[in-house]
Amino acid sequence: MNTREIKIGSLVLGGGNPVRVQSMTNTDTRDAEKTIEQILSLEEAGCEIVRSAVPDEKAAEAVKKIKDAVHIPFVADIHFDYRLAIKAIEAGADCVRINPGNLGGAEKTRLVAEAAKAYGAAIRVGVNAGSLEKRLLEEKGVCAESLARSALINARILEDMGFYNFKVSLKASSVPMTVKAYGLFAEENDSPLHIGVTEAGTNFAGTIKSSVGIGALLAMGIGDTLRVSLTGDPADEVRVGWQILSSLELRRRGPEIISCPTCGRTEIDLINLAEAVEKRLSRSKALISVAVMGCPVNGPGEAREADYGIAGGRGLGIIFRKGAIIKKVREENLLAEFMEILEKDGII
Amino acid sequence: MNTREIKIGSLVLGGGNPVRVQSMTNTDTRDAEKTIEQILSLEEAGCEIVRSAVPDEKAAEAVKKIKDAVHIPFVADIHFDYRLAIKAIEAGADCVRINPGNLGGAEKTRLVAEAAKAYGAAIRVGVNAGSLEKRLLEEKGVCAESLARSALINARILEDMGFYNFKVSLKASSVPMTVKAYGLFAEENDSPLHIGVTEAGTNFAGTIKSSVGIGALLAMGIGDTLRVSLTGDPADEVRVGWQILSSLELRRRGPEIISCPTCGRTEIDLINLAEAVEKRLSRSKALISVAVMGCPVNGPGEAREADYGIAGGRGLGIIFRKGAIIKKVREENLLAEFMEILEKDGII
Repeated sequence: MNTREIKIGSLVLGGGNPVRVQSMTNTDTRDAEKTIEQILSLEEAGCEIVRSAVPDEKAAEAVKKIKDAVHIPFVADIHFDYRLAIKAIEAGADCVRINPGNLGGAEKTRLVAEAAKAYGAAIRVGVNAGSLEKRLLEEKGVCAESLARSALINARILEDMGFYNFKVSLKASSVPMTVKAYGLFAEENDSPLHIGVTEAGTNFAGTIKSSVGIGALLAMGIGDTLRVSLTGDPADEVRVGWQILSSLELRRRGPEIISCPTCGRTEIDLINLAEAVEKRLSRSKALISVAVMGCPVNGPGEAREADYGIAGGRGLGIIFRKGAIIKKVREENLLAEFMEILEKDGII
Repeated sequence: MNTREIKIGSLVLGGGNPVRVQSMTNTDTRDAEKTIEQILSLEEAGCEIVRSAVPDEKAAEAVKKIKDAVHIPFVADIHFDYRLAIKAIEAGADCVRINPGNLGGAEKTRLVAEAAKAYGAAIRVGVNAGSLEKRLLEEKGVCAESLARSALINARILEDMGFYNFKVSLKASSVPMTVKAYGLFAEENDSPLHIGVTEAGTNFAGTIKSSVGIGALLAMGIGDTLRVSLTGDPADEVRVGWQILSSLELRRRGPEIISCPTCGRTEIDLINLAEAVEKRLSRSKALISVAVMGCPVNGPGEAREADYGIAGGRGLGIIFRKGAIIKKVREENLLAEFMEILEKDGII
């Protein structure tokens, strides 16, 4: 979808720009030191926009200190109290996320937008199925149409003021409801979209639900920035986000590992071998594909297609580079020999 | 997509039937005891069709013993040698998977189909990007069009014989290529489709890649049975498969847990609480939703929408059932009290 461009700090979002990966801190925002520490480690993991809850004045005051110490755009997450949004903007937040379901009406939204305009900040209109406006709930209940309606009404409030530096999200814990809501909104409005499935669950269930929902939206061409929601470590949200983008071949952050499922044909300890290769490559930024195969059926074919590949079985390990066999080694030396080659080539 | 119905053992697949979850054993198929043991535990995990590699005559002979001991349809995975396919059918396999890229031509395929017809078995035409026919590779290389072409040619060979009891798969390790290949095939042929992304990787990457790819296909209405490929435990493939179906609200096998991501507002140890609830509910077959919330923003809303919900913060835990608060407890007793209620209600 062709969304308009907006600016969040130094980052341009929307239009044809890359889909950005974001996450949210789970430290107490008032504890600026701890929050900074977490944001810096999220940056390391590949986080490109970070959000922190700002539930009170002390948290709003901490924003200044946090902003001075981090390198990626900072979004203050605001609920209930529009004054905290203004305070966060004054303290230097690059964007404030407001929830129209609990901010208290159009006039409050306009006051926040005026502050954003004055300070060059962005706004995210963050609609959520768990906290929709009462009026919409009474009309149609919790459904994709209500989510889209809430987002469209609030986008209009900002547009009518001549304020366009905002993005929109429409999240539900139901994947089909989420996908439908974004689709309905995108048909009517060109705002850049922050996509995600809310309250997606624990690392296991949440990773799958987010991959299915965010993946479906991206496959439809919807999404300018994404957040994976996990009841877990925020750095995992970033890792999952990048893996979703990599799966759809939209963006890559490091090597892609292709490894076959094990089956009755597998003659080597493929699970541990693949996990070991993945771990050794985890800090590499090289945009290469690496095939780890244990099977004579697709193994040689896949290993040949990949930039680097290894295939094992019957005591023998074969190392491929760009489609050519470069070494045959004893199987027990396969990992070590392969790593040596990757090191020599500057991959790790 | 409206596919035709086929029969695999006692199971009817395709048409409007539920999307079935399948997996593949990674034991040595010749070791019937071990393979049976793994299949029985896969059944327990929710596997509805199982496949085992049949790389030689001894494995084909083991099929009879395996078939006698398991309860779900059994698919023999055949590469290279059509005679093994016929032997597996004679031994009672409900379906044979053949790979047109390495079976050796149309005549071999016809011989397998004749045996399948005689024994009432099904066939899966399993096309794979890593092992495409040489002729197709020379024409267009590895691409979605080549995959679709291979599948269409081989479907036609079976149809021309009046054999229709077959399904088709078109797998690549690239998600976009896989999704495109299935789409191209489904436009031209009504065969039920076995979907999946091949060589998807380790548990982490493979879960995400499979969720994105299989999720995108299902969201397009494509897929009659699915296999998640992981370089890992086949039971995990089944669990991920069910979670994909559950995410899309197509099928459910047990409770769905909705839990919020942690953020600076969270005042309880939500990660451990959600993981504990998930673990305690892992064997339940109750088709309920359970919200585990730590936040005053969406917590009460989500907890009210769910069949059961708990929300915690500031020392207080609230337990919801069907939208009503049924108990307020001290936060440290929240998990125990909640489990007691679920037990009384017969959920766990």
